[in-house]
Amino acid sequence: MTTQEYIDQHRDRFLEELKALIRIPSISTASEHKEDTRRCAANVQEYLVRAGLDKAELYPTDGHPIVYGEKIIDASLPTVLIYGHYDVQPADPLDEWETPPFEPTVKKTPHHPEGALFARGATDDKGQMFIHVKAVEAMIQTDSLPCNVKFMIEGEEEIGSPNLVPFISEYKDMLAADVILVSDTSMLSKDAPSITVGLRGLTYLDVKVRSARADMHSGLFGGAVANPINVLCDMIASLKDENKHITIPGFYDDVEFPSDRDRQLMRDAPFDEQEYMDSPGVFGLEGETGYTTYERTGILPTLDVNGIWGGFTGEGSKTVIPAVANAKISMRLVSNQDYKKITKLFTEHFKSIAPDTVKVEVHPHHGGQPYVTPTDTDEYRAAAEAVKAAFGKEPVPMYEGGSIPIVSKFKEVLGIETILMGFGFDTDGLHSPNEHFGLWNFYKGIEVVPSFFAAYAARK
Amino acid sequence: MTTQEYIDQHRDRFLEELKALIRIPSISTASEHKEDTRRCAANVQEYLVRAGLDKAELYPTDGHPIVYGEKIIDASLPTVLIYGHYDVQPADPLDEWETPPFEPTVKKTPHHPEGALFARGATDDKGQMFIHVKAVEAMIQTDSLPCNVKFMIEGEEEIGSPNLVPFISEYKDMLAADVILVSDTSMLSKDAPSITVGLRGLTYLDVKVRSARADMHSGLFGGAVANPINVLCDMIASLKDENKHITIPGFYDDVEFPSDRDRQLMRDAPFDEQEYMDSPGVFGLEGETGYTTYERTGILPTLDVNGIWGGFTGEGSKTVIPAVANAKISMRLVSNQDYKKITKLFTEHFKSIAPDTVKVEVHPHHGGQPYVTPTDTDEYRAAAEAVKAAFGKEPVPMYEGGSIPIVSKFKEVLGIETILMGFGFDTDGLHSPNEHFGLWNFYKGIEVVPSFFAAYAARK
Repeated sequence: MTTQEYIDQHRDRFLEELKALIRIPSISTASEHKEDTRRCAANVQEYLVRAGLDKAELYPTDGHPIVYGEKIIDASLPTVLIYGHYDVQPADPLDEWETPPFEPTVKKTPHHPEGALFARGATDDKGQMFIHVKAVEAMIQTDSLPCNVKFMIEGEEEIGSPNLVPFISEYKDMLAADVILVSDTSMLSKDAPSITVGLRGLTYLDVKVRSARADMHSGLFGGAVANPINVLCDMIASLKDENKHITIPGFYDDVEFPSDRDRQLMRDAPFDEQEYMDSPGVFGLEGETGYTTYERTGILPTLDVNGIWGGFTGEGSKTVIPAVANAKISMRLVSNQDYKKITKLFTEHFKSIAPDTVKVEVHPHHGGQPYVTPTDTDEYRAAAEAVKAAFGKEPVPMYEGGSIPIVSKFKEVLGIETILMGFGFDTDGLHSPNEHFGLWNFYKGIEVVPSFFAAYAARK
Repeated sequence: MTTQEYIDQHRDRFLEELKALIRIPSISTASEHKEDTRRCAANVQEYLVRAGLDKAELYPTDGHPIVYGEKIIDASLPTVLIYGHYDVQPADPLDEWETPPFEPTVKKTPHHPEGALFARGATDDKGQMFIHVKAVEAMIQTDSLPCNVKFMIEGEEEIGSPNLVPFISEYKDMLAADVILVSDTSMLSKDAPSITVGLRGLTYLDVKVRSARADMHSGLFGGAVANPINVLCDMIASLKDENKHITIPGFYDDVEFPSDRDRQLMRDAPFDEQEYMDSPGVFGLEGETGYTTYERTGILPTLDVNGIWGGFTGEGSKTVIPAVANAKISMRLVSNQDYKKITKLFTEHFKSIAPDTVKVEVHPHHGGQPYVTPTDTDEYRAAAEAVKAAFGKEPVPMYEGGSIPIVSKFKEVLGIETILMGFGFDTDGLHSPNEHFGLWNFYKGIEVVPSFFAAYAARK
């Protein structure tokens, strides 16, 4: 029996198993779901054992356990390390769900005429993670696994993976591999397969502008003292020029753009601006002059105010000049930008543009490095071949706007590059009510993974 | 007996009577003090009767009563209408008071070596209002009242005088007078007597900038959509140029500056910038280029953001691009500026500078006209003479930064100009804990008022 025949034969069981996994509300941020989360980890472990791995174990952490499993068929062959997560986001607002978030339900949608599984975690990341469990099962059960495989499935991705870096540092030898394979991103569309090759980094800071010890009466002090809200607005406004280019000196120094070929592939890829706008209902698109929308979210860094507050914000009016104004500012970073360096550049610049009449505080929150997958490697070429075999088209190298900080940590700590082979769509509502994952996508993923293993083993 | 001899003889009783009035917690905004407020009105009425007025009555309103009294000695003589208020601000935060707010206590301060009466309402406005009651008593009891006098003492000034305009409209004939005299402002210092000749007007608006129907993820949308907080900051920043000059077209069209002589008097007046800065603890002074601090708060209009909010403002970080950002913006207005016209100019301009990617809403809250007392009149000259007689110095025409909207209504409805002869200091803590009123100021006021009556009657 071929791997594909095995997959076809067990389609229904695969889906039922995924549903069972999804029914467990493994919300990592909610302490009342701690036991559910542990139970979910144990279920993943059980599925790995049943897939035919040599071993599958739970590794306790200070938070939720990490599931590790491996099948070493020949130590001289290359090793693929699969990373995913079994924890999910909270489901609220509950009243916006059309079906219960932890009762998986199959419904058709315009993007998914074959049906999609609606549930929290359907695409992020239980469904995508389970693709690998089932693909590896199919390869093992049909004696066609062409190289070694390891699984590392964590339960804290949705809360920032606080215990994963200590884990990979401690178990560096156990985790030794030639490539890391992750399905926790998306693809463009059924007609436009893609592989994510860029993830933006992030730095996030709190800023505070103070002009006095105490709030002031706008009649007595208006016009003669610095109003920290006005000052903060001036300072924020000055951080971009009329072309939306960020004005922090040195900010763009380490930005490297993709090759002309990759950029052309991106430009040629179908990108439905109207659909992109419709999902949050934006009134119009704007961004740095000279770039497409898709490039603005993928290959360019950004600077956004995520929150601002100061003064009187209640009903009615109060003629106060507040002593202090605050903002939360984040920057998405790309290619070689280093979040620590950018944090320093921002802090120095932001303080330098403040007038003498105010005191400025800048407090960095957290950061993450951007990640770019090299595309001139056996790993990427194998992934591209597998995708082309399944979809009949060369995949577009896709630069995503979001961040998965752990991926740059894999490179830093383990020294291994990651292939980001996502099978969901951006419109699948991840982190939102009515999250779903297409059945077509689920089965297509289970078909692509063995192709990747075969192509990769053949190249090594 | 001269008026001054009468005043000297009854000094202690005047103070005890003021203390009795202050002990009544007539907090107009607090419904649990409704009866106290009514009792305070009845006490004021009683003092007016005892002063020797022909009549003194309580006029009920939809809120707290208005006390009206009059002494008409000769219908052919001019009439002075005295306006004041018997209601007070709430006393909280109570734990910041060194002595109980409604237990008047005399203590010495650097500005008041002769002692000051500490209590809520001591200067605003019970003490200042009572100056007139006692001055008129002294004139009547010594048969030296040189013209007619009317009193209108309201109980809702601290909540915006909602029932005073209906009252003055209804009783226009009863209130007929040649000048309105008000002591509810401040003077510069003992060495620099002053008369307030300008009060700023006000327009106050809520603005809302929206770029989408729903909040967005900064990874997926950052860099490609309008962030309403950034847009709001850009728009606010553009409302002033690098000289802090307001850029709204037509904004300054109706501004008239005081005469060169008045402006020189203001420049020559002692103004302690350090003391001004110390009270709220501001780090530095700034304002429109080419003007002194005192001019910036008095004769120039302002534009201040009183509150701003949008996006995530909690602890930690959330990578959101909010759909909406809000601000409260107010403008203090001067001389001939009309708040309705300025509100319209602001609204049109603010909408015109918005990019196409956002929708802007502007909601005006309330407004008030600025007021300028003409200084080339018998009323002002009489006031200046009275002050000069008592202090030995020409008073400085003082332009205050705050607003008393009812004063422009007196002009509009009754057609009468107002003389703003304040006897407190800006440092007396009005609306704050430990409000106080200097005994020296109290007695000086009782001495100045009869001088004004005499000088005014002589000129008419």
